[in-house]
Amino acid sequence: MSNNMLDRIEEVLLMGPGPSYIHPNVYEALSKPTLGHLDPYFVQIMDGIKAQLQELFNTKNQLSLPISGTGSAGMEAVFVNLVEKGDPVLILINGVFGQRMKDVASRLGADVDALEFTWGQPVDLARVKEQLGKRSYKIVAMVHAETSTGVRNPAEGLGELLKDNDALYLLDTVTSLGGIEVSIDKWGVDAVYSGTQKCLSCPPGLSPASFSSRAVEKLSGRKTPVPNWYLDMSMITKYWGGSKRAYHHTAPINMNYALYQALKNILDEGPEKVFQRHQRVHERLVAGLEELGVKMVVDPAHRLPMLNAIYIPDGVEDAEGRKKLREKHKIEIGGGLGDFAGKVWRVGIMGYTAQEQYVDRFLEAIKDIMK
Amino acid sequence: MSNNMLDRIEEVLLMGPGPSYIHPNVYEALSKPTLGHLDPYFVQIMDGIKAQLQELFNTKNQLSLPISGTGSAGMEAVFVNLVEKGDPVLILINGVFGQRMKDVASRLGADVDALEFTWGQPVDLARVKEQLGKRSYKIVAMVHAETSTGVRNPAEGLGELLKDNDALYLLDTVTSLGGIEVSIDKWGVDAVYSGTQKCLSCPPGLSPASFSSRAVEKLSGRKTPVPNWYLDMSMITKYWGGSKRAYHHTAPINMNYALYQALKNILDEGPEKVFQRHQRVHERLVAGLEELGVKMVVDPAHRLPMLNAIYIPDGVEDAEGRKKLREKHKIEIGGGLGDFAGKVWRVGIMGYTAQEQYVDRFLEAIKDIMK
Repeated sequence: MSNNMLDRIEEVLLMGPGPSYIHPNVYEALSKPTLGHLDPYFVQIMDGIKAQLQELFNTKNQLSLPISGTGSAGMEAVFVNLVEKGDPVLILINGVFGQRMKDVASRLGADVDALEFTWGQPVDLARVKEQLGKRSYKIVAMVHAETSTGVRNPAEGLGELLKDNDALYLLDTVTSLGGIEVSIDKWGVDAVYSGTQKCLSCPPGLSPASFSSRAVEKLSGRKTPVPNWYLDMSMITKYWGGSKRAYHHTAPINMNYALYQALKNILDEGPEKVFQRHQRVHERLVAGLEELGVKMVVDPAHRLPMLNAIYIPDGVEDAEGRKKLREKHKIEIGGGLGDFAGKVWRVGIMGYTAQEQYVDRFLEAIKDIMK
Repeated sequence: MSNNMLDRIEEVLLMGPGPSYIHPNVYEALSKPTLGHLDPYFVQIMDGIKAQLQELFNTKNQLSLPISGTGSAGMEAVFVNLVEKGDPVLILINGVFGQRMKDVASRLGADVDALEFTWGQPVDLARVKEQLGKRSYKIVAMVHAETSTGVRNPAEGLGELLKDNDALYLLDTVTSLGGIEVSIDKWGVDAVYSGTQKCLSCPPGLSPASFSSRAVEKLSGRKTPVPNWYLDMSMITKYWGGSKRAYHHTAPINMNYALYQALKNILDEGPEKVFQRHQRVHERLVAGLEELGVKMVVDPAHRLPMLNAIYIPDGVEDAEGRKKLREKHKIEIGGGLGDFAGKVWRVGIMGYTAQEQYVDRFLEAIKDIMK
């Protein structure tokens, strides 16, 4: 037997909450020759990625770039750059990632108010409106696609509520970007971050982000330096923009190649078509599950296509069922997080995973483990 | 012409301050099928990486792991976990990366004393000893291999000075690890971080790090939570260790494959042999440069083998010379940073780049541009 562990990596069909299955051309991109982080051709690729991100986020924001860390680094980056100690911040929570926002902002010294909503239900804008009448906030933050529950939150509606409000609007699009519409300029979003390993179908390692001019103003008007050198956008922007690229940190070069290719795949297919494909495959999944008597957690009106929370089928044990899916069928799905642990499974159909053949393979497999 | 920018990436011989040239088997590792971040086989690979890091850092530290970001994320992680507001911290500075430590620690509210030394000269332990007599510190931090100047700092000697001192000893080994000996247990280092893109010859994207039991004690005894969710080691350690792996953030899976392979390459060749190869190739470079009349910045006694700071040859213009190396000879070297900008070039012979053939190719090229 080889003493190289990598020789025994099996191909697993990734149908969990991310990472998702990856197109062969993204693996190819990942292993292109490494260039220097200040190499003139790499700088051109950076510009290419910026333009692709602007297209997919539907924004003209100049500060559109991938943060050099995974999705949670994007969350950290957005808060650490835009929060100053004592800032009143309103966070809307209906799952693990809303909770994480509260934790991140609190550690940075924000004065956090949290509105909590039932897991599996969307954020209720009427309650948000009421809260906005009680206090003025510097930041209002919400998760667009709550990966822990499969709920789509009303990103556009929250934008309308915040239209005449001075608060910056922060939106987590880790799981939504590339799977459903994300139109941050139209919605009035001021800061957004995502992850590469969800609907972009790229390995984890970068967090695409974008900051509006209002967010950049807040950043440049800070009274205190950003208490995080690595994620300080006021420095990073000099590397990702401007005529003279100033060295900040060494960007993950090959991950950027992979992101370029993954974004190109979506833009070449056409974002609208990609979203339709997610929806179509999602409906096929739901129909198949219903046939098997497996119940969805979220009401049809608020379901995400790419993240399907299902109740663990009767008679199947959580860990054992997932183990059998992984070992016998080479399929990964996700367990429940937080309050949903032991009750719910999460089935991802993200990006390249969103294909009829994979849903059919999954339906066969779950039928088998329910026997 | 293809509309895919990645099709026009050229292979460039990377002889700058990192990223370095990469072994084909590391590219191969990078593009192995992505597994889930909680997949049982990926967890085995994580254990494999931990064991490899312990071997290369010469440590028994349980908390040995790659941070999910590039080298500077490692610096950020070490300081943000170990510094609490108002902690007296002593930073020894003789180049850009010592300065960066000061910036990072100051932003976190540390009470920083900095001892500055002439660039191109090593840290003077007599002055450090004197300073340690004046005040007691919670942390003393130094860069082992100063990438901006090519100086090797006395890591072992500083360890001896700190033997009976309560301060934690933080060491930056971004450029040293894999090129010269790094023996953190023997030297009494409490926290260390490195980068993948230097002597490990892996693309940038991870920062291997290690924390002693004293460092872990300091972490678990903190009065305030770590003001950085993404890099909070008290949570990350539950993902990288223990019997039940708790999800924290999604690790950069494929970058971890690449790191595994890159570490395996070094351990298979044998670290001692790898260090000797760096030294041998470095001496060949210096001899060749001296023949051409090019002068080294650092005194032979304190020179690093993997990072060679040279004075820009007479009659050659900085940017133009490097441009010609890149365009005509497909070789990247680094310009000077900070005080050395416009005066110094940095020639890296790191990891896979540390081969006679590449030094010879570089010597031919520099001869050509000096014509």
